[in-house]
Amino acid sequence: MASPERRLKDLGITLPKPAKPVASYEGFVRSGNLVFVSGQVPFVDGKIAVSGKLGAEVSLEDGQKAARICAINILAQLNEATGHDLSKVARVVKLVGFINATPDFVDVPKVMNGASDLFADVFGERGKHARSTVGVAVLPLNCAVEVEAIVEIE
Amino acid sequence: MASPERRLKDLGITLPKPAKPVASYEGFVRSGNLVFVSGQVPFVDGKIAVSGKLGAEVSLEDGQKAARICAINILAQLNEATGHDLSKVARVVKLVGFINATPDFVDVPKVMNGASDLFADVFGERGKHARSTVGVAVLPLNCAVEVEAIVEIE
Amino acid sequence: MASPERRLKDLGITLPKPAKPVASYEGFVRSGNLVFVSGQVPFVDGKIAVSGKLGAEVSLEDGQKAARICAINILAQLNEATGHDLSKVARVVKLVGFINATPDFVDVPKVMNGASDLFADVFGERGKHARSTVGVAVLPLNCAVEVEAIVEIE
Repeated sequence: MASPERRLKDLGITLPKPAKPVASYEGFVRSGNLVFVSGQVPFVDGKIAVSGKLGAEVSLEDGQKAARICAINILAQLNEATGHDLSKVARVVKLVGFINATPDFVDVPKVMNGASDLFADVFGERGKHARSTVGVAVLPLNCAVEVEAIVEIE
Repeated sequence: MASPERRLKDLGITLPKPAKPVASYEGFVRSGNLVFVSGQVPFVDGKIAVSGKLGAEVSLEDGQKAARICAINILAQLNEATGHDLSKVARVVKLVGFINATPDFVDVPKVMNGASDLFADVFGERGKHARSTVGVAVLPLNCAVEVEAIVEIE
Repeated sequence: MASPERRLKDLGITLPKPAKPVASYEGFVRSGNLVFVSGQVPFVDGKIAVSGKLGAEVSLEDGQKAARICAINILAQLNEATGHDLSKVARVVKLVGFINATPDFVDVPKVMNGASDLFADVFGERGKHARSTVGVAVLPLNCAVEVEAIVEIE
């Protein structure tokens, strides 16, 4: 299989610089072989690209796009964590998808597929993860989706 | 103490086949000695057994029943992860319970006890876990409860 | 740098006894070098110190105070986990902050800083963690904030 970097290129994705938190926490922390990535939101060039709630002003398609951007921002953190060598990612272990949703929007897993599919596209079998998806009352800056990750590094 | 399989038999529980996700993720992923189980919902024979919100159409008793079914579905994933030998479970490390609840339903921990109690019943001391319980806006397919797990395997 | 115990003293913080769950779970579970701390709520002397929702009856300042109390209760669990020697904390790896919030309260990260800042104050660089913060529909006993933690121990 092609390298993750090659797959990203084929997908037309250029990884951004990883977001540096402005408060007393980090974009990721490594412990042993596991990298814990902070909840990533759909920031593009320092602005929330998709804000609002699924079930209200955000469509399913835009929600999936938001989840995909969260995944790209996770990849940016992993790029930093691996010293710019994503082939060191041994396994995407676990994702949690938090969807900013109205109480009647039951299609939260479909939104989250926008993140899951990208990891499968970039890493193949090593990208297949355990996951949980839930609809929450509100997210930081009213963004539509937040995704956190646990990843095993070689 | 009796084996987990014996305890399940005594409780009258037959483990179902583990649910196979239809999207780009897995029912569980193992990393080192830890198995991360995807958020399980109260599926019985491919249908959500308890749907709706605590604080509205779902009673506390039905919520606890839903949490117990989630725990049974976690056991089904662990059965697969251990090669059908649950005695390899060294410790149920951590559960997170997501309860589909109205904003005024404050008894979410009582709902989650339906899952916690089953792990204690099946594994004894090794079943006692750390946990978090929160009330969320909505869950996949409007199910009443979703539970995820981290489990240490020998 | 001063020991965590010294830093706590300087901050005027006396750690309480760790809360003992009344149900089938534990305040924390250790697996390998990682300690998983159950979601802690703003209990002070057995009572919820800050209850209600951010965006409604709870101010940002009171929410931050609640998050700080959750962090103190995590420290109490870690005190127990380390045999009363917090200098064994190698790294605060990951926090998740669940904020009891109305659907329009978008400042959930500011609330969570009340917890993150305390870990940085007590542990310095070793206190800087990955984190996720989300606004949920409701929390146990209607408390304002719940925080869970994963911590690496020497």
